[in-house]
Amino acid sequence: MLDDLRQCVCAVNLALKQSGLVTQTWGNASALDRESGLVCIKPSGIDYVCMKPEHMVLVDLSGAVVEGALRPSVDLPSHLALYRAFKDIGGVVHTHSHYATCFAQARRDLPCLGTTHADYFNGPVPLVDPPSSREVVEAYEHHTGMAIVRRFGEGNPLNCPAALVAGHGPFVWGGTVEAALENAEVLEELARMALHTLVLNPGAAPLEDFLLEKHFQRKHGADAYYGQRVEPA
Amino acid sequence: MLDDLRQCVCAVNLALKQSGLVTQTWGNASALDRESGLVCIKPSGIDYVCMKPEHMVLVDLSGAVVEGALRPSVDLPSHLALYRAFKDIGGVVHTHSHYATCFAQARRDLPCLGTTHADYFNGPVPLVDPPSSREVVEAYEHHTGMAIVRRFGEGNPLNCPAALVAGHGPFVWGGTVEAALENAEVLEELARMALHTLVLNPGAAPLEDFLLEKHFQRKHGADAYYGQRVEPA
Amino acid sequence: MLDDLRQCVCAVNLALKQSGLVTQTWGNASALDRESGLVCIKPSGIDYVCMKPEHMVLVDLSGAVVEGALRPSVDLPSHLALYRAFKDIGGVVHTHSHYATCFAQARRDLPCLGTTHADYFNGPVPLVDPPSSREVVEAYEHHTGMAIVRRFGEGNPLNCPAALVAGHGPFVWGGTVEAALENAEVLEELARMALHTLVLNPGAAPLEDFLLEKHFQRKHGADAYYGQRVEPA
Amino acid sequence: MLDDLRQCVCAVNLALKQSGLVTQTWGNASALDRESGLVCIKPSGIDYVCMKPEHMVLVDLSGAVVEGALRPSVDLPSHLALYRAFKDIGGVVHTHSHYATCFAQARRDLPCLGTTHADYFNGPVPLVDPPSSREVVEAYEHHTGMAIVRRFGEGNPLNCPAALVAGHGPFVWGGTVEAALENAEVLEELARMALHTLVLNPGAAPLEDFLLEKHFQRKHGADAYYGQRVEPA
Repeated sequence: MLDDLRQCVCAVNLALKQSGLVTQTWGNASALDRESGLVCIKPSGIDYVCMKPEHMVLVDLSGAVVEGALRPSVDLPSHLALYRAFKDIGGVVHTHSHYATCFAQARRDLPCLGTTHADYFNGPVPLVDPPSSREVVEAYEHHTGMAIVRRFGEGNPLNCPAALVAGHGPFVWGGTVEAALENAEVLEELARMALHTLVLNPGAAPLEDFLLEKHFQRKHGADAYYGQRVEPA
Repeated sequence: MLDDLRQCVCAVNLALKQSGLVTQTWGNASALDRESGLVCIKPSGIDYVCMKPEHMVLVDLSGAVVEGALRPSVDLPSHLALYRAFKDIGGVVHTHSHYATCFAQARRDLPCLGTTHADYFNGPVPLVDPPSSREVVEAYEHHTGMAIVRRFGEGNPLNCPAALVAGHGPFVWGGTVEAALENAEVLEELARMALHTLVLNPGAAPLEDFLLEKHFQRKHGADAYYGQRVEPA
Repeated sequence: MLDDLRQCVCAVNLALKQSGLVTQTWGNASALDRESGLVCIKPSGIDYVCMKPEHMVLVDLSGAVVEGALRPSVDLPSHLALYRAFKDIGGVVHTHSHYATCFAQARRDLPCLGTTHADYFNGPVPLVDPPSSREVVEAYEHHTGMAIVRRFGEGNPLNCPAALVAGHGPFVWGGTVEAALENAEVLEELARMALHTLVLNPGAAPLEDFLLEKHFQRKHGADAYYGQRVEPA
Repeated sequence: MLDDLRQCVCAVNLALKQSGLVTQTWGNASALDRESGLVCIKPSGIDYVCMKPEHMVLVDLSGAVVEGALRPSVDLPSHLALYRAFKDIGGVVHTHSHYATCFAQARRDLPCLGTTHADYFNGPVPLVDPPSSREVVEAYEHHTGMAIVRRFGEGNPLNCPAALVAGHGPFVWGGTVEAALENAEVLEELARMALHTLVLNPGAAPLEDFLLEKHFQRKHGADAYYGQRVEPA
C-alpha cells in the first residue's frame, strides 16, 4: 500500500543522514497522502545503514498503525498535530540539526538577517514554548506539535515552514516531504549564518521590510520570476 | 556560438558548487566576451546535477537573450552593470558563500587583517548599501550592480575585485571568469579568517600599510616575483 | 585468548579515528571481560593505518601484561581505576575530541541545555580536578582515574557516562566498548552544541527538570518507548 | 642529486594540501641535508595537481640555486635564516593554516591551555613581530626569518618548534621535514582548540606548570614512556 510514499519517505530520511542534518538517529521525516488520509513515517531509533522502504510505518491521522511491523518514530504525535492543523502541508521533518538546535537551546527566534533567509521564510522563524509539565505527563509529543500549531494561529504555515521548539530543536514542513527536506537544509544554513552574523555584530538589524518582501515574492509570489517555467532538457 | 565561453562558464558554475561556495542554487557566474560584446551566464535556479554547457544563456550587454532556451539568472542585470562600468573585467561571480555573506549581513567591511588578504585585495573589501525601496521597485537587480559601481567610483576595480552588498552577499570579479572564481574562493577564506581573528581580538588592527603594499606588489605589481614566469613542464 | 574482545577493541579504536574524535594518536579505547577479569586496550602511540587486532594488549586489573608484544596505552591506569570502581561498565574511551576538550580546557561543566543532551546524560557532564602535583609524581595516570571515581561518589556512573578532566579532556564509558564509543560521539556533538548555544546566549538556562527527566526516561527508564524491541529484519 | 630529499619534500608539500593546512598555494615546506649543506624547497606558486619531485628546487644555504628549472618559493630566505640559526632542525614548514593564522592576525601568543598542547610544545607558541618598514624594503623574507631567530634567543627551538609571525602566519620546524609537518598539523588543532576554549572562558588559565612538564617529558624527556621502543610488526 502506498509504495511510492514509502519510497519517498525512506529516501528523505536517508538524505537527512547523508546531508549531516541527522546525527546518530536524531531525526525523522514523514509524508501525508491527503487522499487516503494516511501518514508514512520512519520507525523509531533504527540504523540508517539498513533502512529500507518496507520498514516505513503507515498510520492514520489518529496515530493507529495501518501497516508496518516496527514502532513508528516516538515523535509521530507531533507530526500528526501539524498535519491535522496545517491543511496545505504534505511533509514534516524533525531533526536536531546543529545550528537550528542551538537557536532552540538559546531560546531565540531565528531573525531574518539577509536575503538568503527572505528567499525561503517570510519573517523570523519563531521560537515555540515547550509543553508544560502537565502536558508532558499527559501526552508529551502531541503537545509539542500543538504548541507549534498554537504559535502559528491563523497565519499561513507555508509562508514560514518551520518552528524552533525551545530546548529541543526544529520542526520543518512543506507542500511535500521533499520540500520539507529542502526547507530543513536551508533552515540549518540560515541558523549557521545568523550565528556568525551575530558574532560579528550582536546588534545586527533585521533585513529591511521592502527587501524581505521583494526576495520572498520574486521566488514565491504571484509574479515570481526566479527559476524556470519548465525543466531544462 | 562561443562554445568555449559556455564551457568555461559552465565549469566555473560547477566549481562554485563543488567548492562549497554555493549552497542549494544560490550563486551564478558569468563571462564577457569583449570582442562580440556577449555575456554568457548560468540559467536561473536549475539543478547542478544536470547542468551542461548548452544550458548557459548568451545575452548582449543590454540583457537581450541572443541564444539559449532557458531564463538567465535573475541576477543578470547586476552582472551587466559591472561589465558596463568596469572596463578590464571579464568574469563575475555572485554567491551567498557563508562567511562573506555573514559580513554582508553584519553590515561590516571586510578589513585587511593580514598578508593573506594583502596578497589579493589592496585594502578592505567594501560594504555596499543595498538599493533603496524606490530602486527595488524600479529595477532591483540593476540597481544592486549600480550601487557597487558607485561605491568604487574612479578606483581600479581589479585592485579590490569584490564587494559585499549589505544584507545580501558578495559580488566578485576578475580579468577572467576563472580569476573571479579564485577571488571568490579567497574572499570566503579571508572572511572566515577575519571572523575568527575578531573573535580572538575584537579590536584587531589592520595590517600595517607597508606590509599590505609589499604583499600586494610582490604578487601583482610591476616587479612581482611571486610564482613562475613560465608554467612547469 | 579473547579474540573477539581484541577484534571489538581494535574496531572501536579505528572508529574513533574514522569519526574524527581522534586527531593524530590522541585517544584510546579498552574493554573489560568481567568473566576473566582481563582488559584489552590499544597499544601506545601507534599508527592507525597499520593497527590490527593482534596489536591489542591484554592486561589484568592490576595492569600486568598478560598477552601482547607492545606497550599498552600510557592511559591504561586511568582505565583500570574506572573498571575497578564502576561495577557495571564494560568499556572506556579516552580522547582529546575537539569540543569536549575545549570545555575541559575552559574548566567548565558541560551543562544540559536541551533534549539532545537529556537523551543520553541525566544532568551536566561534570568537570573533574586534575591530579595534584604530588599525585602526578606518584602515579599520574592512576590518579587521573581516581579523581573521576571520587567525583562520582555513590552515583550511578551509567546515568552520566562521561567526565571532563580539567585541562586534559574527556573520559567516557558504557556497558560495552561500543556503547562507550557512541557516548563519546554524542558527548562531542553535545559539547559543540553547548558552545554555540552559549555564544548565542551566554546565560542560557539548563533544560527544565521535567523535560530532562522525560527524555532520559523515555530512552533509558523502565518504561522506555524509544527504539524497537527487536531489530528490523 | 638528492633524489630522496626531493621525494620527501614533494610528499610533505602535497600532504600539506591534502590535510587542509594549505589553501590555494599558500604554503611551502623545505628540508635541509646537513651533510651537503643543501636545502630542497617547493617552487613558487605552482599548482598542486601537477607537482612532482623533479619540480623541487635545490639551493645552498646562501640561497643560490644549485639545481632546478623553477623559481624557489618566495619565502626561501625565511627558511634559510632558520636553518642557519637553529642547528638541530632538518625541516621547515610555512603555511597560512586557518586557526594558527588567526592567532597571528589577532596578535596573540598561542597559550598552553591543556595537555594536548603540552604533549608537543613546552610552553606558549610565541608571537613574533613582523619586519620593520626598513627591513621590508631591504630584504623582507630574510628579516621575517631573522625576527623568529631573535625571538628564540638562546632557547632550544625543538622545545617549541613553531612561531607565529604577527599579521602573517605560522612558521614551523622539526628534526626532519616530516616532523615539521606533524608539528604544523598539531599547531593548527591547538590553535583551533585555544580559540574555542577562549570563547567558553576568555580568562582561561594556562595549564599548571607541573602538568605541562609531566606531559612534555613523558613524550620527549630522557625517561619518556609514550609510544613504542620498536615499531609494531
